[in-house]
Formats: sequence, C-alpha cells, structure tokens
Amino acid sequence: MKKNLIAVLFLALFSSGMLSGQELANFSFGRGPRVASPVIQGDSVTFSLSADYATVVQLQGNWLQGMTPMRKSNGVWSVRLPLPAPEIYTYNFVVDGVSVNDPLNVMVQRDGNRYLSMLYVDGERSANYKEANHRGSVSHVWYDSKILGINRRLTVYTPYGYEANPKQKYPVLYLLHGAGGDEEAWSSMGRAAQILDNLIEQGKAVPMIVVMPNGNPGQQAAQTLSLPESNTNFRDPSMSNAYPRSLAEEIVPFIEKNFRAIPKKSSRAIAGLSMGGGHTITTSLLYPSMFDYICPLSMGTQDTPEINSQFAALKKAGFKLYWVGCGDSDFLFNNAKTLDSVLSKNNIEHTFFVSDGGHTWPNWRLYLNTFAPLLFK
Amino acid sequence: MKKNLIAVLFLALFSSGMLSGQELANFSFGRGPRVASPVIQGDSVTFSLSADYATVVQLQGNWLQGMTPMRKSNGVWSVRLPLPAPEIYTYNFVVDGVSVNDPLNVMVQRDGNRYLSMLYVDGERSANYKEANHRGSVSHVWYDSKILGINRRLTVYTPYGYEANPKQKYPVLYLLHGAGGDEEAWSSMGRAAQILDNLIEQGKAVPMIVVMPNGNPGQQAAQTLSLPESNTNFRDPSMSNAYPRSLAEEIVPFIEKNFRAIPKKSSRAIAGLSMGGGHTITTSLLYPSMFDYICPLSMGTQDTPEINSQFAALKKAGFKLYWVGCGDSDFLFNNAKTLDSVLSKNNIEHTFFVSDGGHTWPNWRLYLNTFAPLLFK
Repeated sequence: MKKNLIAVLFLALFSSGMLSGQELANFSFGRGPRVASPVIQGDSVTFSLSADYATVVQLQGNWLQGMTPMRKSNGVWSVRLPLPAPEIYTYNFVVDGVSVNDPLNVMVQRDGNRYLSMLYVDGERSANYKEANHRGSVSHVWYDSKILGINRRLTVYTPYGYEANPKQKYPVLYLLHGAGGDEEAWSSMGRAAQILDNLIEQGKAVPMIVVMPNGNPGQQAAQTLSLPESNTNFRDPSMSNAYPRSLAEEIVPFIEKNFRAIPKKSSRAIAGLSMGGGHTITTSLLYPSMFDYICPLSMGTQDTPEINSQFAALKKAGFKLYWVGCGDSDFLFNNAKTLDSVLSKNNIEHTFFVSDGGHTWPNWRLYLNTFAPLLFK
Repeated sequence: MKKNLIAVLFLALFSSGMLSGQELANFSFGRGPRVASPVIQGDSVTFSLSADYATVVQLQGNWLQGMTPMRKSNGVWSVRLPLPAPEIYTYNFVVDGVSVNDPLNVMVQRDGNRYLSMLYVDGERSANYKEANHRGSVSHVWYDSKILGINRRLTVYTPYGYEANPKQKYPVLYLLHGAGGDEEAWSSMGRAAQILDNLIEQGKAVPMIVVMPNGNPGQQAAQTLSLPESNTNFRDPSMSNAYPRSLAEEIVPFIEKNFRAIPKKSSRAIAGLSMGGGHTITTSLLYPSMFDYICPLSMGTQDTPEINSQFAALKKAGFKLYWVGCGDSDFLFNNAKTLDSVLSKNNIEHTFFVSDGGHTWPNWRLYLNTFAPLLFK
C-alpha cells in the first residue's frame, strides 16, 4: 500500500520532469508488458524491444549478416536466434531505419563515437572477459606532453595487491589502441583489466601495470566537454613520429615516476592493434633499447632497405619476445605477412600468431589473452 | 585518390561485418546528408536526426515539458529551440515511440540503467562543469567489505598534484549517491571531478581527495558481467545500518591506508544526495566523532525523541559544518525543513541552503559547487 503510494508519487514527479531517472531505476511502472532482453536460454538468445508504434524493427549484430527481421506480438518485437559461440558481441535494433540500443541491457560499449549494446556468451574462449575474484584498479590520469603541446589523459591498470604491497615494483605493458579508438578502448571493448585480472589470478601472467594511452596525437582525451584538439600541425616534417616520441620520451618516464614501475628494458612491453600496431613497430624501432617485449597486432610493415636496416639494429640491441598477431581475413594480413618475412630475413626469432577472422575486437582480446602470459618471464 | 580507395576498402569491410566501428570513426561516408547535432547558434539550439523511414520523430529533454515535435526535410528530422539557461541537460529522440540517443553526440550520461544524450550550455552557473586546466585523476578501486560480505568498487578522485607531491597528505570528502545510482553517478552526472578541479584551480577549495562509493549494499559494482548481488539479507535486524557501518568501519580505513589521506576528524567530510543524504545523516549520527563536515542534500529526517537525542550527542561531540541543501520543489523538501528545525531546536549551528527546483542533478551539482569551498577551512 505504502509502496504503491510512493510509486504513484514518483511517477507524478517523473512525468512533471521534477525527478531524474536516478531515482527511478529501483521502481517499476506499468508501462507496457514486462520484457527482458537479451535472454539466453540453452542454445538460443532472444532479443526484445517494446515498440508498439514502429512499422519495421530489425536486429543488427556484429556476428550476423545484414539485418535480421523481428516480429511483433502485443507491442513487443522479438527474435530468437541460435546462441553464437562464446565471445563478446555488439548489437543494436533498427527501428524504422534508426539505430537504437537495447534499453533493457545496461551493458553498453562505446566504440569510437558509437554506442552499442553488448552480448556476452560465456564459455572457454570468453571466460577471462568476465570479472575475476581478485581485481586491480583502473585509473584515468593526466600527463603533460611538451612534444604534442597538450595535457593528455591515459588509463592505467594496476594489478590486485598493488595497494597492499607498497614496496613492490611491477613491470609495465604499454597497450595501444587503433584509429578511431582512444584511451578507453582497451579497458572497455578490449576487457584488458578483466583479462589481466584473470590471467594473474590463475598464475598464468605475472602481476603487471598496463598503460593505455590516447594514440591520437592531437586529442587531449575522449569525451570531454571543452578540451580542444591540439593546434600542432602534425604534418610538419619536424613533427614526424611525434606520437612514438611522446610515448617513449614522455609517457614512459611519467609512468616510471608516478607508479611503482621497474624502470628497465626487461620490464617494459609494448603492444598495439592496427594504428597502435604501427605505433608499436615504430616506437620499438626508434628506441631499440627500450622494450624487451614487442607485440604488434593486426598490423604489418613494408619490406624496404630502411626497414630492414632498422630491424637489423633492433636485433643487435636485443630483445626477448617479438610476437605478431593477425587474423587470416584481416585486410592487413598481407602487411603482417610481410612483417613476418622481414623478421625471418633478418634472422629475428619471433612468433607469427594467425587466427581466424579479421580486424576485430574478438581477435584483439584473444591476442592479449595469449601473449600477456609470455611477458616478463 | 589513395584516400578514396582506402575509404572504399573500409566501407566494403564494414558492410561485410569484417571491420569494427573502431576503425571507422575517422572516416566519413556518403550515408545521407551531413548533419551535426546538437548545434548551438546564438540563443538557439537545433537537434537533428537522420531518419528517412520514420513516421513520427519527437524530442524529449529534461528541461522540456512532454514531447516536442520535430519536422522532416530531406530525410532529416530537426527542431530549433530557444537555448535553455546555462546547465547540463539530458535528452533523447523518440522515433515512432522508441527512445533513441542522438547518434551524432558522443557525450552520453548513464543515469542508473538509462543512457541519455547530454547538452551542455555554457555560462556562469555551468562554468565549473567543464574541464579545468589542471586536472586530477579518477580511479576505480576495489575493497573488501566483511560487513556486506562482498568485494566492492569505489571511485576515488585525487587532486592535481597528488602524484607530483608524494609526501603531501590530503583531507577527504566522502560523496554519496542516491537510490538508482552507483559508484559512477557523481563522477559522470555529478561532474564531481570537474567541479573540484575548477574550485581547486581557482583557489576556492583546498586540494582534497573525493571518495564516491557504491551505496547499494548488495551490489559489488555497476555494469559488471558476472558479479552477483550479495546473498546477505539486509532486512535481518543484525544488518541494520549495514551500509553506514561499512562506510565508517571499512571504507574510511581503506582510504586512509591506501591513499595519502589525513586520518583525522578535521580532515573528513561526508555529503550525499537523497538516499546518500540519508546515509550522510545516519553515519554522522552513529559515528559522531568521525566527520567535522556533514552535508545532507535533498534529504531530511523525522522529529522523534530518538533523533533529537542523537543530534544532541552529535552537538556534544562537536563538528565544524552542518550544511543542508534542498530544492524548494523537491518532494523531500518538507523532510529537509524538519531536519532544519531539529537542528535549530538542538541549537546546532547550520546552513539550510534552499535552491529553486526539485530532486535533480542540476541542484546536486550546484550544492557540491557551493559547499566544497567551505570544507577543511
């Protein structure tokens, strides 16, 4: 009785615009049929959307070809599909031609400028993408870049136990995103914190710090209200390789000063996908004595005399792991194969890890989960 | 020429589902007319949505009454409205009855389970909600709660200079959210980091740590894939005030151990909105020697002999600031007035800050911006 009165009061206040959604999430109202979405049952998954006035509702998912029609019953559109293999997927509804996130699914990923609903299918392949029992911290920290001329944000993962062991120092993985991404890409879509938490908890990876900077040299941070892009002209020849230089000369020293990082080549790894794979290759070639572990993902190189002499210099400087990951249908697979052959030609011991599929997050999560156990050992 | 070829390749890969949005954000395609939204020009703001196949498109905003019709031209629905007063607003489109975020606006706020597009209107009232020049860090950290029986996440703001001054210790504000919120409410909708950055930069507030815990006692964290709610029965009498007890006996010691916090009453403040205002009142009454600064927002109390004797004990223990904020059309305004009168009756010096409006984030941001300069002085 009292609860109903409160619900009526809340509803009145909400309708009048006096009450924010903040106060509503714990109350349920009689607005149409009760629907949940997505619902996984056995080998199927059902998506539903309450949309009584829509003419056509379709489902779009990154594991589906084209649009999947949905059917309406009692004002609710739904479709039941075979459950795809264990992995994280993204999807949205298309309501009369307009993309709509699933309002019943709080799990949303931001992919560049787009927001997409998330479908998690549990299984061996995706187990490390769930939360572990022991979890590290994720921090958003600002640093000054004199090279790029701006103050910039980066994301730092510190492993479970970092606070409780104030004298312990840790190795550091620098983990770089691709074009269109930002300093939140690896920690959201990449599930980097969950993967490291799980691998460390299972004793497969050593506890490490993971630094995820913003690789767009003109950008201060993702999703800000008032921070302008840098005025720097990055096409000026003097700005050549500005981001790799900033990474090696500014980010690495900043991390080693402000976090309990081991400031040694043997405790530094660099990895990155696509554009970040390019940053990985370039930074490790320009600073051959900086990283012992080098992992370009979904990226390759050309076979030129200059590149070959740079790799020869890298081999001379020495390192412990060169791990290349690429999907066999990635549009950069040929570039990755060229990198593989350049490494072979220069007698550089390395791994060329070829997976199914293309230039996608399922592959990048798989690569991180695969190479992180090889680092700092 | 080369760029066009690359764009065509990307488009083909995207259409085939081989390419993630990650790689697309920096490319533009000829998908309908080029539209931006929202666009502020002078005293007006125009919202636009490309939706050629929709029958009815409307705009819903938290500063608007009901639905605002939009008009279609060349497949783009739009509406131009007077620019509301400086503040942060949220809005969405309603396409044939279904809520849709603005796909052209990357600024999105999560309000409990709902995602809403954000409109920022610049001006004196909202100036501190933008990014300051000197910015602190925001960290997501896990702590064990024996009282609640789960491992839980909290958000910690450390001010600009925290890393560079490793011997400096800071006072701490514990800042609590309302029902339906979580440990990300104050840092996203509340703009707490930006407000503190600006106040500290302007010399109006002292540098402080701000701790934003999750106030739902059974919840480990917001937006997780696999962390279940606590099994604890919080209705069991032995669990009475479990959350305030966990805050005082677990969170405060955790922060004072793991951050450079000054572990003194004179360096501890507690504030919270709505349910978090209740937590503020209860925790400060149960632990009268813990906080010198007490700021319940949009919340009040009853006038009972027990409450009065608790306030008498709080007065005896002593404190430096009791600051109550409430909107004059808040549905809890009468409760806040009762709190004001209980404080007066017990001869407790305090501030009763009454603002326009109701139980809303514009008020809670205003309150934080108003009382934070009064803390630790």
